[in-house]
Amino acid sequence: MLYGNCIIAQSGGPTTAINSSACGAIFEALNQKAIERVFGARNGIEGILNEEIFDFAEEDLEELKYLKTTPSSALGSCRYRLKRDDSSDFERIFKVFNKYNIRYFFYIGGNDSMDTVKKIHEYAQKINYEICVIGVPKTIDNDLVGTDHCPGFGSAAKYIATSILEMAHDAAVYKSNIVTIIEVMGRNAGWLAAASALTEATDLIYLPEVPFDFKRFEKDVRKVYEEKGKVMIVVSEGIKDNLGRYISTLESIGGHDNFGHAQLGGVGSVLEKYVKENIGKRVKKIEFSILQRCAMHYSSKTDIEEAYMVGQQAVLYGIQGKSGYMVGLKRISNDPYACETELVDIYEVANLEKKVPSHWINKEGNHVTKECIEYLAPLIMGEVSIPTEKGLPRYARLKMRILAHPIN
Amino acid sequence: MLYGNCIIAQSGGPTTAINSSACGAIFEALNQKAIERVFGARNGIEGILNEEIFDFAEEDLEELKYLKTTPSSALGSCRYRLKRDDSSDFERIFKVFNKYNIRYFFYIGGNDSMDTVKKIHEYAQKINYEICVIGVPKTIDNDLVGTDHCPGFGSAAKYIATSILEMAHDAAVYKSNIVTIIEVMGRNAGWLAAASALTEATDLIYLPEVPFDFKRFEKDVRKVYEEKGKVMIVVSEGIKDNLGRYISTLESIGGHDNFGHAQLGGVGSVLEKYVKENIGKRVKKIEFSILQRCAMHYSSKTDIEEAYMVGQQAVLYGIQGKSGYMVGLKRISNDPYACETELVDIYEVANLEKKVPSHWINKEGNHVTKECIEYLAPLIMGEVSIPTEKGLPRYARLKMRILAHPIN
Repeated sequence: MLYGNCIIAQSGGPTTAINSSACGAIFEALNQKAIERVFGARNGIEGILNEEIFDFAEEDLEELKYLKTTPSSALGSCRYRLKRDDSSDFERIFKVFNKYNIRYFFYIGGNDSMDTVKKIHEYAQKINYEICVIGVPKTIDNDLVGTDHCPGFGSAAKYIATSILEMAHDAAVYKSNIVTIIEVMGRNAGWLAAASALTEATDLIYLPEVPFDFKRFEKDVRKVYEEKGKVMIVVSEGIKDNLGRYISTLESIGGHDNFGHAQLGGVGSVLEKYVKENIGKRVKKIEFSILQRCAMHYSSKTDIEEAYMVGQQAVLYGIQGKSGYMVGLKRISNDPYACETELVDIYEVANLEKKVPSHWINKEGNHVTKECIEYLAPLIMGEVSIPTEKGLPRYARLKMRILAHPIN
Repeated sequence: MLYGNCIIAQSGGPTTAINSSACGAIFEALNQKAIERVFGARNGIEGILNEEIFDFAEEDLEELKYLKTTPSSALGSCRYRLKRDDSSDFERIFKVFNKYNIRYFFYIGGNDSMDTVKKIHEYAQKINYEICVIGVPKTIDNDLVGTDHCPGFGSAAKYIATSILEMAHDAAVYKSNIVTIIEVMGRNAGWLAAASALTEATDLIYLPEVPFDFKRFEKDVRKVYEEKGKVMIVVSEGIKDNLGRYISTLESIGGHDNFGHAQLGGVGSVLEKYVKENIGKRVKKIEFSILQRCAMHYSSKTDIEEAYMVGQQAVLYGIQGKSGYMVGLKRISNDPYACETELVDIYEVANLEKKVPSHWINKEGNHVTKECIEYLAPLIMGEVSIPTEKGLPRYARLKMRILAHPIN
């Protein structure tokens, strides 16, 4: 067992659950005798490079508890990618690690962050620096390999399905018909769009995994419109045509009108215009935008608890001397739902992307299968009780005071 | 006291609270001996004109209870405006009233709906038809005269302030700066934009009550940007320039670029483009769209309870023989907050609009005063426990079976 200090940092796009993972790691680290001081780095690996480091012991314990139900990345984030061919970043990082006697590094993030975990682990081995480097998964995109699902996804899924259900109630009140187009995140993997299948209010789902065809789309929309009069369409921001071109950036479509302004609004705007001009129906376009990744106010209890667990387990695995791994989630059973953690070799995770498997997409390519819904269903279970103040959620307020006189 | 049947209907834009008012009215009406049968009309006054009437006795009582926490207008809505100079609508309505022996008519809606209440009340007097006609207020816009505030507004306000708070957490994670523009509803009255002041995350608020000036806007944004690096701007969809022209439809601005496509995206898109091109900052635009009026999943307990109360009181006032009134909310005290109902003459309500008073807007015209925030604060207090099913809210499922063989 290594004795020394630990550092915890967050990276990549924020989620509602990433602070819960930080919270789990912080409290477990504070609890471990082998770990003397528990540091945080501001803005991920950038905070280590810039020596923007703070000590969690300076925080009020009650505030730290609020972290579990605080959305977004409280420690700050970055999208910095370490340069493999340039060792200056690594030299700098390990100089800082050495100065602060860091023997545990827990990095919470997505694909790119797992690449950082891998590189730091490799460099530590190369220079014989004793440290446990463990990745903690998070991403609303659910596209990490080596884990049944990703903390952060369940809450985004719950928010999306709930909002669609509510919007369907809204659309139902007037006798007049309407086509609603909802754009959700997901550049290459359609998990968030797939999650919209958790409510029966969703009629059509278009994923990046299926090449998008305007004519087939038109046929789909007309069919549902004729049956129901109201059409609820969910589309991933990253859908592409059969040549791999993003629909959101298409300037013209099969001899139809010019879509020069599409880049302003993304794929939702392109489809909105298409429905107006080619199907001639009343249409409303809605983007959940960043709300789908920060709406803690209706998050999944399962997700927030699992996020806490993977953070906590990262520390426990570190104490066992493990390094160069990500903490994965392994589904033990689906009904009743049970999930535990396992270690996943970081080489099997970094830079890879898990897409919605083709056998979970229906043959028409406009919805998902029953098996997919069964996989998704347990991830949105349970509601989180959020402390409030003056009628609004009360989120953690950390000091994160940068150490002015760093320890030797 | 009149003996006979009653009819309940909803009109105008849906809110999260309008079904709670219906629920209060239905249960109180079912409870009253003077009222034999409690009918609903589908799609407001249109359901009466078309004789699309159903009997609440046919509904499962448990389902009716779910109504209290079900968003949107479960009975359906309309935007139909009765023609004053043409008596055919009125003749038809009273023919239906007579056929179903309707002696109580409770209409839940906004300004236009109160006009319907007034006209029906007047016509009843004219033809000496004994009926109690009572309006029940609802609107997320909070623009009804004669009531301290409107059921439906508090929940929309809570959703808006909460979402902005969460988005501010999201915007804070990266070191890079950003201007966020949030478009909220409010064509002529800026109450929903004002509600964004309930979170300190909101920097600048632009209301329809203040003529919008691009140069002053630019100055405001630059000032906050220099101080904080992140700017959170909330704008009402209905802001106008000093000539009264909607900013959302302006085609060109002071010699600047052409905004020909503005109508696609509304005022948020116009300001987004302006910030990009004239201030040169990274900008993100978000529209809450219909979510602000249907997001029951984070509604205000105060609002939902008051909505129930006004529905219930409408029936009690009716039983007292009152007609030609709206049930208003009267604030008894602010701290502790207490509110009761009162009758408001429908002539003092119909077709009028209550705007944000000028003394509640700061002198720079880009935020609201402390007094305004004190008025708003109690309206978002408390959270509503929503029953769930498979991880999603469980909302009422009514049969609303149109009476096939109407009673005589």
